[in-house]
Amino acid sequence: MAEMLTPAELDRLYVILVGSRNPLNIGAAARAMSNFGFSRLRVVHPYDVAFREARSAVDAEPVLLAAEQFGGVAEAVADCTLVAGTAGRAHWNSGGGSLRLEDAAAVVREELARGGKVAILFGSEKVGLSNHDLAYCQLLLRIPTREEHPSMNLGQAAAVVLYEFVRESTGSAPPSAAPPMATSGDRERLIALIAETLGRARRDAQSYDTAMEEKARRLIHHLPLTRSDIHAWMGIVRRVLWKLNQRSSG
Amino acid sequence: MAEMLTPAELDRLYVILVGSRNPLNIGAAARAMSNFGFSRLRVVHPYDVAFREARSAVDAEPVLLAAEQFGGVAEAVADCTLVAGTAGRAHWNSGGGSLRLEDAAAVVREELARGGKVAILFGSEKVGLSNHDLAYCQLLLRIPTREEHPSMNLGQAAAVVLYEFVRESTGSAPPSAAPPMATSGDRERLIALIAETLGRARRDAQSYDTAMEEKARRLIHHLPLTRSDIHAWMGIVRRVLWKLNQRSSG
Repeated sequence: MAEMLTPAELDRLYVILVGSRNPLNIGAAARAMSNFGFSRLRVVHPYDVAFREARSAVDAEPVLLAAEQFGGVAEAVADCTLVAGTAGRAHWNSGGGSLRLEDAAAVVREELARGGKVAILFGSEKVGLSNHDLAYCQLLLRIPTREEHPSMNLGQAAAVVLYEFVRESTGSAPPSAAPPMATSGDRERLIALIAETLGRARRDAQSYDTAMEEKARRLIHHLPLTRSDIHAWMGIVRRVLWKLNQRSSG
Repeated sequence: MAEMLTPAELDRLYVILVGSRNPLNIGAAARAMSNFGFSRLRVVHPYDVAFREARSAVDAEPVLLAAEQFGGVAEAVADCTLVAGTAGRAHWNSGGGSLRLEDAAAVVREELARGGKVAILFGSEKVGLSNHDLAYCQLLLRIPTREEHPSMNLGQAAAVVLYEFVRESTGSAPPSAAPPMATSGDRERLIALIAETLGRARRDAQSYDTAMEEKARRLIHHLPLTRSDIHAWMGIVRRVLWKLNQRSSG
């Protein structure tokens, strides 16, 4: 479990935007990279794009400032050992290795782990990656979107793909820094306070509703209460008990 | 594996945007919903927002047109059996059940599988969810972003969270034949009764301890209470309230 990418591995993954001209989308991709710890952005475009001013890139300036620009896909992926294209549904059945993102991520992580450089290509929103672009890819990576609405926004697609690379891959990660749970003894102290309160709230001097106290005991023990929960509830019950005692003595 | 959500399950998940005023972000969230097959959007805002005109919502018009608007979180989650908040790092250690998205998704899928309605709350980009909003949540869900740059764009956060819900998961959480969980509305009825009791238990005519009521609200919403738990607790609180009322009238 917890197959986290190391800083060196994060540093060997290149996000390559091909033909994106919308600075908002470029900025959004940069922001997702920054959120998930990636820093290598490459932009493929035959002419200059003002992508460094991308407005939506809150706190992603370092990624944008370090971005490299290339005139073609061939140059942009030249130093990479694995090139993966993100493809719309039109290309899913175009032969070759098309994998669902979940499975493609394992291949990408494996390549990073053995020291390779991995390129992830994203096309423009309008036309996606061309067949020429896809020719450089060893892997086609598909996000499991709905058939009726497959096309994602570029920034959102980048966020989803990069999240999949950094997510904990298998099974149960214990909740981190979970607050300490109450012991049975803690619970019983709360139950005693509730019992005392119910004793004060009985209908008449003779009757005491044991069933109600038992019900409270069962409920308290069944709930996943933390120590601080118990503390808070005791404060609340004490207030009510104080009032009941005050009235009977006054 | 391949625990896909059924159409009925997709239909029981509600994306709730709290305090979002930027139509671009609302549109982006709607688009991610449409990409991954979700259709239930609720917007919480005290005054009218022109969210249906959201421009970036390519092909997400059906989601936006069917969106419901509410004046408060309480109303928006009233029919839901599990409420999960998405929280920034500031809230990660605030006690209660904070889970990484990967683990939270298993809890969400389980609740959907057993017929529950699940609400996923997203706050505004600027301030996130308030402590009051979080008081309605049984679960805090955190996206594993980098400590140095934790804050995601709303549309990207929605895309990542919804993707995690629909991705193929290998870890199998068998749907348990557990008793039906309480809705937020059920919980609020119990909270109202506790608030009334605390009102009767105030120190003097002037003072009323709002903080204590808020604390009770947070505690009640954080616990995995069943419908029958709520019923039992209401019986217990009613007994105490009856006594307090009897004394003040006698």
